[in-house]
Amino acid sequence: MIIDVHGHYTTAPAALGRWREAQVAALADPAQAPDPAGPAIGDDEIRESIETNQLRLMDERGIDVTVFSPRASFMAHHIGDFATSSAWARICNDLCHRVAELYPERFAAGAMLPQSPGADPATAVPELERAVTELGAVAVNLNPDPSGGSWTAPPLTDRSWYPVWEKLVELDVPAMVHVSTSCNPAFHTTGSHYLNADTTAFMQLLQGDLFADFPRLRLVIPHGGGAVPYHWGRFRGLAQALGKPEPEQTLLSDGNVLFDTCVYHQPGIDLLLSVIPYESVLFASEMIGAVRGIDPRTGRHFDDTRRYVENAGLSDGELAAVEEHNARRAYPRLDARLTAQGR
Amino acid sequence: MIIDVHGHYTTAPAALGRWREAQVAALADPAQAPDPAGPAIGDDEIRESIETNQLRLMDERGIDVTVFSPRASFMAHHIGDFATSSAWARICNDLCHRVAELYPERFAAGAMLPQSPGADPATAVPELERAVTELGAVAVNLNPDPSGGSWTAPPLTDRSWYPVWEKLVELDVPAMVHVSTSCNPAFHTTGSHYLNADTTAFMQLLQGDLFADFPRLRLVIPHGGGAVPYHWGRFRGLAQALGKPEPEQTLLSDGNVLFDTCVYHQPGIDLLLSVIPYESVLFASEMIGAVRGIDPRTGRHFDDTRRYVENAGLSDGELAAVEEHNARRAYPRLDARLTAQGR
Repeated sequence: MIIDVHGHYTTAPAALGRWREAQVAALADPAQAPDPAGPAIGDDEIRESIETNQLRLMDERGIDVTVFSPRASFMAHHIGDFATSSAWARICNDLCHRVAELYPERFAAGAMLPQSPGADPATAVPELERAVTELGAVAVNLNPDPSGGSWTAPPLTDRSWYPVWEKLVELDVPAMVHVSTSCNPAFHTTGSHYLNADTTAFMQLLQGDLFADFPRLRLVIPHGGGAVPYHWGRFRGLAQALGKPEPEQTLLSDGNVLFDTCVYHQPGIDLLLSVIPYESVLFASEMIGAVRGIDPRTGRHFDDTRRYVENAGLSDGELAAVEEHNARRAYPRLDARLTAQGR
Repeated sequence: MIIDVHGHYTTAPAALGRWREAQVAALADPAQAPDPAGPAIGDDEIRESIETNQLRLMDERGIDVTVFSPRASFMAHHIGDFATSSAWARICNDLCHRVAELYPERFAAGAMLPQSPGADPATAVPELERAVTELGAVAVNLNPDPSGGSWTAPPLTDRSWYPVWEKLVELDVPAMVHVSTSCNPAFHTTGSHYLNADTTAFMQLLQGDLFADFPRLRLVIPHGGGAVPYHWGRFRGLAQALGKPEPEQTLLSDGNVLFDTCVYHQPGIDLLLSVIPYESVLFASEMIGAVRGIDPRTGRHFDDTRRYVENAGLSDGELAAVEEHNARRAYPRLDARLTAQGR
């Protein structure tokens, strides 16, 4: 079975975008506030948006199941306040839940959190709990920079984040550390902000000792870990300079930190899988995401990462771990869902 | 000949640090202001600091010449105002000039610029000109984020930077895009801020069209280009989505953007040299910098990058380009200096 742990509902029906526009407009003019119940979107609209897009490509590429969360760049936690993000997260999470209900064998829901700049991370816990216990989310996306490029939040090792980590451990759910839109003109959202956030989060974890306090916490660093595997020697040397053991030992070996395979060319995937132990790598594509085009050199989509992963020279057992078993171990609620389906 | 284009005076005599401490203290208490002429440092002190450190390692590693600039993390452009940075840059640049005078065959000076958050980049031009025309600097380091991690400066393609680009072109000097200390707790200076800045700068250049206006401008992205080569497929795909030609064509092929080899393990260097055309790669180590330890797996210093570059499978001609000829082409004042020495 091939599990893609990184998919977003980038193709949601237009009514969702209109609802958000009205919500944003209402920040200045309350008369424009949209229906608090959310946009009216029929099941057929959802089916259309999925079957012509993600499901079509999953079938073409042989991907069985995708962990499917709200569009990352649209989380835009910097807009409005906690109430704004709370209403928006609820609606987006409900929609991903409906996708997973319509295609229970093909999608499992991931959830966004109602974060907001300056808001105590603990305020995200109720929606986290609702998404997991009521909507069946098997993972959440956690934004280390709700400001959208000002990086005003404390590091992930700060105690203000601990209520989130406690709840994730209690629910046995991993978090993908994933920023949203950059509203800083220095940072291109998908070209630099996403990758910078991955590198930043990893280094925060390397500097700290979070997993001593939360040995069962699992954090997924997306986009192949940003710059980390390419600079693995630097991070090993920095760990040494900080008086710490090898990062493999402190961060990877107990399954606390995992990297996904959203790296859009063969040499990058080859490096990832040659440097990072295969047990710490999860297959993912973030398809119909940052890079949607076809590589003229290969004639295939840049984001068709399965092709790179399968050409990286792994043994059959290693490949099965990256494409299925590591995800079932790191996402126990996904494993339970698949097991209940007899898979 | 082996040229290292990325060295900093990280081992400067302690009097320099004391001068800076007094300068910083004087921001609150003018009575503590240090001698405006700078610290008293004798030639013997400089020799001692160089011969036991950089020169020793250069000899051990077979590096002939290093482009040697003020310590990057100590530029700390966020401290004080333009006058603070102006005095500090002048003193640091003078010191690197003295190193290059004491060892004319082993070091060529690079310069820092007197940048300051919110200050017009044009204010850096007089020191840039002084460093090149009076001190013989063959390159400068330009900080894309003088705030030290708040990223409040406009992208490098913004017209406010144009006076700097114009002067660099006029003087025929390249700039290395290099941030300084992070004062943002989210970013570890050398673990994430440096690499993020490299990725950020490259993406700014990819989004813009700076080299149409400055076809002879040359910018060096250090630390192996941050995350860029590892994610080369992503950047190619983003260029395509932006309606632009391949980044190799718009940024690399005319020598406008170059990457250095400050990547501290073999797989990273292998990726860099397999993905980026060798004509766009400059040998560098940033030795006695971010990562000073010995890799227990190899028994060699992490930052002994020559070993990786020589083991990367380049032909003799390609290796000579990376280790010498590309630098002589990108740094014409270095080439002139070496040529005048009969080298």
